[in-house]
Amino acid sequence: MDTPLYQRLADHYRRAIRTGALAPAERMPSVRTLVRTHRVSLSTALQACRQLEDDGLIEARPRSGYFVRPLHRKAMLPASEPDPGRPLDPARYVGIHDRVSDFIAQCERHVTSVNLALAAASPAHYPAEALKQAMIRAVRAKPLMLVDRVPPLGHPELRGVLARRALELGMNLAPDEILVTHGCIEAVNLALRAVARPGDTIAVESPVYFGLLQILESLGMRALEIPTSPLQGLSVDALELALRTHPHLRAVVVVPNFQNPLGCVMPDAEKARLAALCERHQVALIEDDTYGMLCDDDRLRPAVKSWDHTGNVIHCASMHKTLAPGMRLGWMTAGRWQSRVAMLKFAQSRHNEPLAQVAVADYMGSKAYDRHLSRLRRQVKIQREQVAEAVARHFPPGTRLSMPEGGMLLWVELPGQRSSAQVFEQALAQGIRIAPGTMFSNSDRYNHFLRLSCGQTYTPQIADALRTLGSIVANAG
Amino acid sequence: MDTPLYQRLADHYRRAIRTGALAPAERMPSVRTLVRTHRVSLSTALQACRQLEDDGLIEARPRSGYFVRPLHRKAMLPASEPDPGRPLDPARYVGIHDRVSDFIAQCERHVTSVNLALAAASPAHYPAEALKQAMIRAVRAKPLMLVDRVPPLGHPELRGVLARRALELGMNLAPDEILVTHGCIEAVNLALRAVARPGDTIAVESPVYFGLLQILESLGMRALEIPTSPLQGLSVDALELALRTHPHLRAVVVVPNFQNPLGCVMPDAEKARLAALCERHQVALIEDDTYGMLCDDDRLRPAVKSWDHTGNVIHCASMHKTLAPGMRLGWMTAGRWQSRVAMLKFAQSRHNEPLAQVAVADYMGSKAYDRHLSRLRRQVKIQREQVAEAVARHFPPGTRLSMPEGGMLLWVELPGQRSSAQVFEQALAQGIRIAPGTMFSNSDRYNHFLRLSCGQTYTPQIADALRTLGSIVANAG
Repeated sequence: MDTPLYQRLADHYRRAIRTGALAPAERMPSVRTLVRTHRVSLSTALQACRQLEDDGLIEARPRSGYFVRPLHRKAMLPASEPDPGRPLDPARYVGIHDRVSDFIAQCERHVTSVNLALAAASPAHYPAEALKQAMIRAVRAKPLMLVDRVPPLGHPELRGVLARRALELGMNLAPDEILVTHGCIEAVNLALRAVARPGDTIAVESPVYFGLLQILESLGMRALEIPTSPLQGLSVDALELALRTHPHLRAVVVVPNFQNPLGCVMPDAEKARLAALCERHQVALIEDDTYGMLCDDDRLRPAVKSWDHTGNVIHCASMHKTLAPGMRLGWMTAGRWQSRVAMLKFAQSRHNEPLAQVAVADYMGSKAYDRHLSRLRRQVKIQREQVAEAVARHFPPGTRLSMPEGGMLLWVELPGQRSSAQVFEQALAQGIRIAPGTMFSNSDRYNHFLRLSCGQTYTPQIADALRTLGSIVANAG
Repeated sequence: MDTPLYQRLADHYRRAIRTGALAPAERMPSVRTLVRTHRVSLSTALQACRQLEDDGLIEARPRSGYFVRPLHRKAMLPASEPDPGRPLDPARYVGIHDRVSDFIAQCERHVTSVNLALAAASPAHYPAEALKQAMIRAVRAKPLMLVDRVPPLGHPELRGVLARRALELGMNLAPDEILVTHGCIEAVNLALRAVARPGDTIAVESPVYFGLLQILESLGMRALEIPTSPLQGLSVDALELALRTHPHLRAVVVVPNFQNPLGCVMPDAEKARLAALCERHQVALIEDDTYGMLCDDDRLRPAVKSWDHTGNVIHCASMHKTLAPGMRLGWMTAGRWQSRVAMLKFAQSRHNEPLAQVAVADYMGSKAYDRHLSRLRRQVKIQREQVAEAVARHFPPGTRLSMPEGGMLLWVELPGQRSSAQVFEQALAQGIRIAPGTMFSNSDRYNHFLRLSCGQTYTPQIADALRTLGSIVANAG
C-alpha cells in the first residue's frame, strides 16, 4: 500500500528537522506555504503538521504558527550551580595574560576553518549597508569634522540618542552624564582606574570574562572571584560574605545581563540587593552591560544602574556586539566619579573622533535600529538553539548546559572532569577554535568547561565542526 | 612736484607691510605681477622693489623673488637659557590636574572670541575634502569593515604606509613593528605603562607639555623636570647628572623636534648622545614626535629612534597635527617593549577601527599628502612670523622670544617677572584665550611665560587680539 500523501509530506519535514535543515526554534513553513509549495490540499497540509506535532517535533504557538521543537537539548541538565560552602580562593592578579597569550599563540600555529571562540555575530547580521549610508551622509554633511577639534565627552547627537535609549533600560540620564568611549573595554578600564588603585582587590564573577582579568592584571589589581550561578548570576550572598572577610574590597564588576560566559541574567530582586549592598559598604559597583540588548524576547532587562540613587554605580555599555563590531564605540555614565572618569579619558586617549558617532547616532535614532535589533535577536536565538541542539546530539552523555535567554554564548560543562585544554588542542588540530574554560578564571576551577559562540550563521561547516567536537570530547581524558 | 610713480608703488606696498596685509616671510608679488596689476613699466616695478629692499622691508632670495622681512621680531632677544647651576626640583607628581581643570573652568566662564591657547591649525589648513573622498571610497569599497572584526595592531595598509614614511625620519621599521593608536596621547600612555609603574619617577623636559604632566599624574608617576634650552632642547648634561643623583629614574620622555611649548629641535649630536646615555643607564627613552613633520623647510629632522640599535627607544607619533585633527590617529613602535605595549593596547581599548585607517593610508600614500604638507608648512611658517611680529610690535620692551624653525607654537618670556596667570585672566575677560606658563611645569618656574598658538589663519581679529594682549602685558604687575 502506498504511504498516504500527508505522511510523505510529514516525512519530508521530519528529515529536515533531523538533519538540522530546519533548526530548533525556527518557524515551520505556514500551512498555506505548504499548500502552495507542494501542491497539496489544505487538509493534507494540516494533517502533516498535526502528525509532526504528535511526534513532538514541532509545536503550535498562538497566532504565530508552528515552530520546530528542540529535540535533544531539553534532555540535558543545566550547568552545575556553584557550591555555596566552597571557600573563596585568595585574590589573584597574575597569570591570565600568559594563559591568553598562550591561547592566541597556539591558535596562530593552526589554520582555523571554524571559529567558535569568537564572542561576535557574523558580519551579515549587522546593518553594514545602512551604516555605510549613514557614514557617507555624515561625512558629506560635515566634512570639517575630519579636521576640526573633537567635541569633549562625545558628540552631543550620540549622547542624546544614548540618553533616550537608556530610558528603556530603566536609567534616567542627562546627555551630559554620558561619556563616549572606545568600546566598553575602555569604559571598564576608566571605571576601574577611577575607583581603585594598583594593589587593590576587585570582586568579579566566577567564571568571568577573561578580558576583565587581563584588564585587572594590566592595572596591577587583584581579582576576587565570587561564585556565580548559571541561572541567577552573581551570588549576592557570597559577595556579602566576601565584603565581611575582605574589608578592603574596592569595587565589584558585574555583567548582570547575559553574562559572559554563563549567559545568565540576575533577577531584578538580586540586582536591587546588589546595588543596595555596594552602596551600604561604600564599594563602587561597575556594571558592564555589553550584552543587555541581545535578549531573545524584545523584553529589555533593566540595568543595575536603575536601582542606583546615590551615584555609586558606573554603567558601561557598547555598540560593539549589537550594532557595529568594526566601529568600536562604547559609552559610560559614572555617577559620583563622572568628572574623575572624564579627566582619565582625556588623559588616556582624548575624546572620540566625531564622524562615527554622528553616523551611529543617525542610525540609532531611527526605527531601522529597532528593526535591526529584532532581527539580530531572532537570528541569534535560532543559532543558539541550533548550537545547543548539536551539543545535545553529539557530545557524550552527562554534558550539561544552561540555556540563556539572550546573548551569543553557550557555557558547556563536560562530563567526568574532561580537560577542556586537551579538547581545545585537539579541536585546533582539526581547524576548530573554542574558548577553553581555563581562560575564565585565575584558578583551575573551570577546566572541564568550554565556551561556544552562537553568533555565527549556522552553516553545514559549523554543524560538522560541532559533530567533530563532540567526538573529541567523548574521547578526551 | 608729483611723487614719482615707482615711489607711489613702493609706498603702496610699504603700507601693506606695516599693516600686516603682507606678512613677514610672505612672498612679494613678482615684478611681472606688479607690471600687470599696476600697469607700470618693468623698470618702474624694479625700481619700487629696490626701494623697498633699500628700506629693509623686503629681501631678495636667489631664484625665488622678493620676500617680506621681519621688522621688529629680529630685534627681540631669544628666550632665556636655563641656568645650568640650578638644582633640580624634587620629583613631583600631583597638582597639574587641578591647574588644568582650573584653567578649563575659567575658560568656560567666558565667551572666547580668539583662542590662542590651541595647539592646532585652522581646519581650513587641512585637506578635509580629500579626506572626505578617501573616507567615502573606503567605506564604499569595504562596507563590511564597519561590522567585521577589527584587524590586530592596526590596518596593514596604514602600517605599510607609516613604515615607508618613517624611512624619511631615519627609522627602518617593518610594518609589523608598528602599532596604530588613538592619537599620540594613547601611545605615550601605553609606553609609560609598559616601562614604569605607579610611584616611579620619569624625567621630562622643563617646560613640558601639560598633557604629559596630566598623564603622569593620572598614572601615579612622578615627573622630574630636566632643564631644556629654547634653542637646543633637553639638556643631556643635566639628564646625565639626574641619572647619577636619581638612580631609580625609570624613563625619559622627550619631544625632540619642535618641542611643545618651546619649539626647539635637539641637534643631531645631542639626539645621538641622548639615545646612547639612556641605553647605557638602561632607562627607557620615550620619544613623542607629534610636531616633527611640521618643519618650515621640508628638511625632516631625524627621530631619536634612528640612533637606537637595541630597542631602547619607544617612538610615538600622530596624524593629529599634520593631517586630520578630527580623526585621532596615532602610532608607535616600542622596540623591546613591543609585545608588552600590544598587550596593554588590547587590554586598554582593543585595536583601532579600520575605516579611518584605510582612508588615511590611501591619502598618506599619495603625492597629495606631500603637497598638503608643503602647503601646511608654508602656511604655518608665515603665521608664526605674523604672530611673532605682532608680539615684537605690541608687547612691552624686554619681551623675549625664540623663533622656532617649525611647529605651531611660540613661547613668550614676559619682562620683569610679570605674572602670566594675571595676563591670562585679564585676556579671558576680553575674550582672548592664551596658555599661561604655569601650565607647563609642576613648579612655578614659568609664571612669566605664555604660549601662543600660531596655527590659525592670521585674521584682523587675531591681529587685534595680539595688540590687546600686548597692552595687558604692558600693564600687568
